[in-house]
Amino acid sequence: MARTAIWKSIAQSLTRDIADGRYATGAKLPSEAQLSAQFGVNRHTVRRALAELSEQGLLHARRGAGVFVATTPADYPLGKRVRFRQSLRAAGHIPGGEQLAITTRSADPKEAEALQVSAGTLIHICDALSFVDGQPVGLSQSCFDAERFPDLPKIHRDTKSVTATFHALGLNDYTRVWTRITAISASPIQAGHLRLTEGDPLLRSECVNADLSGTPIEYGITYFAGNRIALTVDGEALEA
Amino acid sequence: MARTAIWKSIAQSLTRDIADGRYATGAKLPSEAQLSAQFGVNRHTVRRALAELSEQGLLHARRGAGVFVATTPADYPLGKRVRFRQSLRAAGHIPGGEQLAITTRSADPKEAEALQVSAGTLIHICDALSFVDGQPVGLSQSCFDAERFPDLPKIHRDTKSVTATFHALGLNDYTRVWTRITAISASPIQAGHLRLTEGDPLLRSECVNADLSGTPIEYGITYFAGNRIALTVDGEALEA
Repeated sequence: MARTAIWKSIAQSLTRDIADGRYATGAKLPSEAQLSAQFGVNRHTVRRALAELSEQGLLHARRGAGVFVATTPADYPLGKRVRFRQSLRAAGHIPGGEQLAITTRSADPKEAEALQVSAGTLIHICDALSFVDGQPVGLSQSCFDAERFPDLPKIHRDTKSVTATFHALGLNDYTRVWTRITAISASPIQAGHLRLTEGDPLLRSECVNADLSGTPIEYGITYFAGNRIALTVDGEALEA
Repeated sequence: MARTAIWKSIAQSLTRDIADGRYATGAKLPSEAQLSAQFGVNRHTVRRALAELSEQGLLHARRGAGVFVATTPADYPLGKRVRFRQSLRAAGHIPGGEQLAITTRSADPKEAEALQVSAGTLIHICDALSFVDGQPVGLSQSCFDAERFPDLPKIHRDTKSVTATFHALGLNDYTRVWTRITAISASPIQAGHLRLTEGDPLLRSECVNADLSGTPIEYGITYFAGNRIALTVDGEALEA
């Protein structure tokens, strides 16, 4: 009778554990040493099972950090309104944000053009990291006209959310003017923030948002971890 | 008075050189050693300036080959209607397409779900390469219900365009149902077709298109060279 290789039955056992939710999406698996002890086999056998599941896309090894249950990218719908947290919450995810820095300096020509201000105008620049289910998914830099929004840094430090900041500034509604999506390789700094490896693929989403009169109020670039966020466009939301 | 960091002024100088056309789109920059000599600084400073410009998307480092002035990606607007060639032509580009293969086989569960047919239904699969201005920009695989469109392969071999094929089949109008965009690293095969390097970032765009009754007629995945195509979403086209 053919005997199933030990590494294969370990791979099957782990697959069942993942399917049963014993190891949740994004969760870290026990270490090789712990799994060796658990299954009563040597590390080499465990490693072979983990390699098989990684090839299947079920696991994801992060250098130096361990082996994780692969995540299905969270969908972020590009709607008329920018609602990162709201739309992720609606899909059952837990969104989060971390402020990295707020800088005030002169706008470079590109920023000035996007915000429709003169080059050299003072702008506030907010660097932030966004999270989904505890995992960093996006590194963003947003620019705002400092003359129009002098108190933005102070408010943003508290709210940590652009939508909430605009709300506090009396802008209860604003819409997406344009969004431009390309793919790039993560630089060491980007990889560090997003807990990826240098060279990993990122979605680069550049966008301008405007108030209801059509005046640009935010120009930003977000780098999303390519395997953690999917930008979606709903055809129903597109006008004919 | 605050002094601009040396690497920053080098980055600004290079930005001006690119803007002035001294270094054309796609051109190779002088080596780090040459730039160090030119600016009278050490290589570390030059490297910092180059890293900054790469992050801005102005430069593109190719491992082992050098640093190049990034080509501006051609915009491909994601509208209600799928009009790859038409929209690129409107922006002054020359679009093109090359048929790689047409296969007929049973739909796998994912394809069947997307096309709303039973798993195992025969489908036609068209593999194609799309070009902009003579450069390969997208590698796509599109699936069609073979029962509904038995003559699609024959027609598609002539038209080499999905829009033209549907037109010949009497479908003069069809619309985007959903589009889902992530970023991945190019496999050796993808890199070969797109004339990129293995591991280069690709935009992965998965989509379903439907006829006017809402029945899915095409399910496809396109891998776009991350630095050659920008997918754009026009806020004006999004319904409130």
